[in-house]
Amino acid sequence: MLTAIDHIGVAVEDVDAALPYYLEVLGLSLVHRETLGEQGVEAALLDVGDSHLELVAPLAPDTGVGRFLASRGPGMHHVAYRVDGIEQALAALAGSGMRLIDERPRTGIRGSRVAFLHPSSTGGALTEIIEPSGLGASDK
Amino acid sequence: MLTAIDHIGVAVEDVDAALPYYLEVLGLSLVHRETLGEQGVEAALLDVGDSHLELVAPLAPDTGVGRFLASRGPGMHHVAYRVDGIEQALAALAGSGMRLIDERPRTGIRGSRVAFLHPSSTGGALTEIIEPSGLGASDK
Repeated sequence: MLTAIDHIGVAVEDVDAALPYYLEVLGLSLVHRETLGEQGVEAALLDVGDSHLELVAPLAPDTGVGRFLASRGPGMHHVAYRVDGIEQALAALAGSGMRLIDERPRTGIRGSRVAFLHPSSTGGALTEIIEPSGLGASDK
Repeated sequence: MLTAIDHIGVAVEDVDAALPYYLEVLGLSLVHRETLGEQGVEAALLDVGDSHLELVAPLAPDTGVGRFLASRGPGMHHVAYRVDGIEQALAALAGSGMRLIDERPRTGIRGSRVAFLHPSSTGGALTEIIEPSGLGASDK
């Protein structure tokens, strides 16, 4: 069902302030930036091999990432697993008794379709499944 | 310098209790188990595409993972980036002013060589670099 670790989400106060570490120290490439209003974040994607780091900064304190930062500070926020068919994956997870944040897929970064599982049923890790949009492999 | 997200470390209270979610719900394969005395953890590796999940449970409360669980509860603990040459990577990171937990590589899971960077210089994420041992690709 899960074909890869698509990305790790890292909560930061400010994307621009966080980028130099990833670009200049770790040597990663910035491949995409986007404001995701529905998720309440400004996001940046950096390539790491076939996976990504997703930096997420809150658009307001009263957002999921805003509350995360207030309670835990910056750091690892979520893990996203890549799936081929998100409806089937979501149905299988629901059938296994998983608590879902998203009953149906919604639009995620770069035209992907995503859904979040609740940390209470994943052992504490906020977990996302993501079906990338039909972009070519070079822009996956 | 970084060729992949090698693994995500997830802190759990008990590896055996955590495994059913990963094996039966997410459908991942358990590929390795090991007690890492130096790191104070019992660990389990599960394949996710070319990356892994590493479940880590503390051998005692007075260990890094034990203290993490006491203060933050179970969840995402560290991210590990795969590198080809760990000495060169570590030297480059030190030269960039990064605060290192390990000045020199030490032995990690499955005969790998690893080093940890301090979260204070990585934006809050406990970060590891890992050079896998020279196992065949089928057992990477």
